[in-house]
Amino acid sequence: MLDRFLSPRRRRQIQRLMRNGKLTLFCLLLTVVVLRGNLGAGKFGTPEKDLDEIRETFSYIRRRAEPRRVLEEAKAAQRQQKSSSSTDASENGSNNYAEFDIGKILKDEDDGTEEFKRDPSLPYSLGPKISDWDKRRAEWLKRNPNFSNFMAPKKPRVLLVTGSSPKPCENPVGDHYLLKSIKNKIDYCRLHGIEVFYNMALLDAEMAGFWAKLPLIRKLLLSHPEVEFLWWMDSDAMFTDMAFEVPWERYTDHNFVMHGWNEMVYDQKNWIGLNTGSFLLRNCQWSLDILDTWAPMGPKGKVREEAGKLLTQELKDRPVFEADDQSAMVYILATQKDKWGDKVYLENAYYLHGYWGILVDRYEEMIENYHPGLGDHRWPLVTHFVGCKPCGKFGDYPVERCLKQMDRAFNFGDNQILQMYGFTHKTLASRRVKRTRNEMSNPLDVRDEHSLLHPAFKAVKVSTS
Amino acid sequence: MLDRFLSPRRRRQIQRLMRNGKLTLFCLLLTVVVLRGNLGAGKFGTPEKDLDEIRETFSYIRRRAEPRRVLEEAKAAQRQQKSSSSTDASENGSNNYAEFDIGKILKDEDDGTEEFKRDPSLPYSLGPKISDWDKRRAEWLKRNPNFSNFMAPKKPRVLLVTGSSPKPCENPVGDHYLLKSIKNKIDYCRLHGIEVFYNMALLDAEMAGFWAKLPLIRKLLLSHPEVEFLWWMDSDAMFTDMAFEVPWERYTDHNFVMHGWNEMVYDQKNWIGLNTGSFLLRNCQWSLDILDTWAPMGPKGKVREEAGKLLTQELKDRPVFEADDQSAMVYILATQKDKWGDKVYLENAYYLHGYWGILVDRYEEMIENYHPGLGDHRWPLVTHFVGCKPCGKFGDYPVERCLKQMDRAFNFGDNQILQMYGFTHKTLASRRVKRTRNEMSNPLDVRDEHSLLHPAFKAVKVSTS
Repeated sequence: MLDRFLSPRRRRQIQRLMRNGKLTLFCLLLTVVVLRGNLGAGKFGTPEKDLDEIRETFSYIRRRAEPRRVLEEAKAAQRQQKSSSSTDASENGSNNYAEFDIGKILKDEDDGTEEFKRDPSLPYSLGPKISDWDKRRAEWLKRNPNFSNFMAPKKPRVLLVTGSSPKPCENPVGDHYLLKSIKNKIDYCRLHGIEVFYNMALLDAEMAGFWAKLPLIRKLLLSHPEVEFLWWMDSDAMFTDMAFEVPWERYTDHNFVMHGWNEMVYDQKNWIGLNTGSFLLRNCQWSLDILDTWAPMGPKGKVREEAGKLLTQELKDRPVFEADDQSAMVYILATQKDKWGDKVYLENAYYLHGYWGILVDRYEEMIENYHPGLGDHRWPLVTHFVGCKPCGKFGDYPVERCLKQMDRAFNFGDNQILQMYGFTHKTLASRRVKRTRNEMSNPLDVRDEHSLLHPAFKAVKVSTS
Repeated sequence: MLDRFLSPRRRRQIQRLMRNGKLTLFCLLLTVVVLRGNLGAGKFGTPEKDLDEIRETFSYIRRRAEPRRVLEEAKAAQRQQKSSSSTDASENGSNNYAEFDIGKILKDEDDGTEEFKRDPSLPYSLGPKISDWDKRRAEWLKRNPNFSNFMAPKKPRVLLVTGSSPKPCENPVGDHYLLKSIKNKIDYCRLHGIEVFYNMALLDAEMAGFWAKLPLIRKLLLSHPEVEFLWWMDSDAMFTDMAFEVPWERYTDHNFVMHGWNEMVYDQKNWIGLNTGSFLLRNCQWSLDILDTWAPMGPKGKVREEAGKLLTQELKDRPVFEADDQSAMVYILATQKDKWGDKVYLENAYYLHGYWGILVDRYEEMIENYHPGLGDHRWPLVTHFVGCKPCGKFGDYPVERCLKQMDRAFNFGDNQILQMYGFTHKTLASRRVKRTRNEMSNPLDVRDEHSLLHPAFKAVKVSTS
């Protein structure tokens, strides 16, 4: 009736008001019901019956409003996609990323909750002592046959764990290399039936930096009893042999596998006698125990500083700096060999960790003379860019060398993926790819040179009954 | 002879000059040959014969230099292990990333192979026509029971495909958001037993930009017959409902699932009637056929430009710009409904794609009133940051709004992962996390609120006999 006197806009506003008016009325009604329920509440809050009524009512309102709301959201989406208005006035800034002050997203909000400060004089602990994990885990596995710890007779369920800081890198290219690094890991793990966990959360502020992996590893082992082996891998380590399958059977009687040399650890106590940038840890009581033994040197501040001095004193060639997890593990193994040694496998038959410095200049030679699947000096499983620190401000090596070589290592690994699909990088230094074969009318007969498309180590017999 | 009077460095410089001098002479020679060829050129440039000669000559030069170079590299590696010097004088730069000129890694090497230039007047093709894919795929699956296309009775094998440019982003934070985005996808896919393929290769230079997904998708379908559904997802789309499982059974009779509305596509021909930023495509002949139908508007240059004009003319509300894959699909469906429509499911019961503009300001409301697992407007499966373009220079929206909201969306999803382990972000804007429960001595009894630790949709019965 009033329509004639109203503009279309005003008309819509009133219609909306009336629609919302019905909704408002309903809400008022329900508030009364809830209040009533609360006033007459027992120990646990609103009586179930009232809650159910409320749920039903809202459900009814939603169902009635559904088609219209969906349509309106679609229209709102259309309008918003055309204009660039923002709901938050403070966000009406430039559309130009070059003009954007990164400080605006770097500063972190606080929710005002007090940071829990542990008494530093008390010994550090990763969590309450657990002593019967093997038994509990075995029981859980029995109750959960659909989350088996073995994917095939000789193939344990493996979780590869890696991560990086939740902050943007201090230098512009750092995040780009983190991105390439995780793509590289995704590729290897997809081929080998391994799951990936990328961590970006600091679970314990005291255990920051290289120590952050300890609380994370313990948490994941205990939360995922179905995982048989946890494979920790640094963000600066890349897979360069996509065809190499870890010889799981070799470690049947071992719980902790690191690249290293017995002599360098047990005899020399050399701080680089082993490497903790890429290691395998079995999900069992023994592992929880060694984690508990490992952690105490980690808490930052005085504890880590003092522990660092001890390690520099006790280990061969160690520079002066705060305690790191790698040195700590050398120390533990060297001083408690009887306790831990029999379950630790220091592997050097293949590069579970491969120091980049002696590998990256040989890629062309490897391509010329060898092939994927060897995992060792001829075709390293892992090329680990220790010391490059592309996410930070300073590395231990010239930046250009690090970045160029990281590109080459990435491409070296990526070529093994691309060849499955008939492509390869133009050079080991080039981002660009070129064809190695034409598209085929018989793609299933394609020559998959290293049998990576459907490799034996990925085959899993699933029961779909 | 002069050696006695020269420093080692100067000596090396002269040797290099002489080596290059021979090369320079060869190049001069070849330039003459090429010029001669050009002066006598036919319609398409240098006669084939001359080009072949040139290629052969360069190949010869390369082969002669090979063994000596490899040996020198090996020696250099040995020297390098001892010192931190670099083999390449240009890599003796600073260890300070802030001083590094990113241009040094941005420029891309060329291997000299000629870029294949397809005749643009001929119709574009993704590859040789395949007409019996269903039959061939079925045979392959029968022969390969350990690569089944179903993981469980109602659970198809799914491959999620995404990717980004192999170049570092034009702005510093772009790669950081790509990193968070892939972590987000890794998390969802791990929970749902879905594999991930992260692409960083441009398979076909003509199909650059949004069209790059077509050759990639076709390649992956044909290379992986075990994949039942390929799920394409843009790099600017994030999972915000970690608990929602796609209702695979709903699509038993469909091959192509996109978020959209029938009326907006078939009646209105609205260019945003559907979204190709997140869609499901079944691995079958029908899909190969629609890919072939889709591709022709893609080749960059005149074809894409002209196609863009047609699409702006034919579709509702479409702005003026070159042809994009989304508009092209609207056009195909709207004009060939009889041919394709019955196998296309335009889904809007949940947000297979959710436009960020109407979702991100409601996260707090969602947390207050709803819970994961709904997938729709109450708790969107996907929040898609269309138009933000964080990897580029300019977006369609203010930068600050985009980045802040992307942080919130990421944290909204990440909280659902963290809560499994007893943590949550301090606020939706904060990178930092806080505990929601203490470490427990009985971790297997933990209350996993949304049953995500060992969800039903991940359970797979493997046969380890």
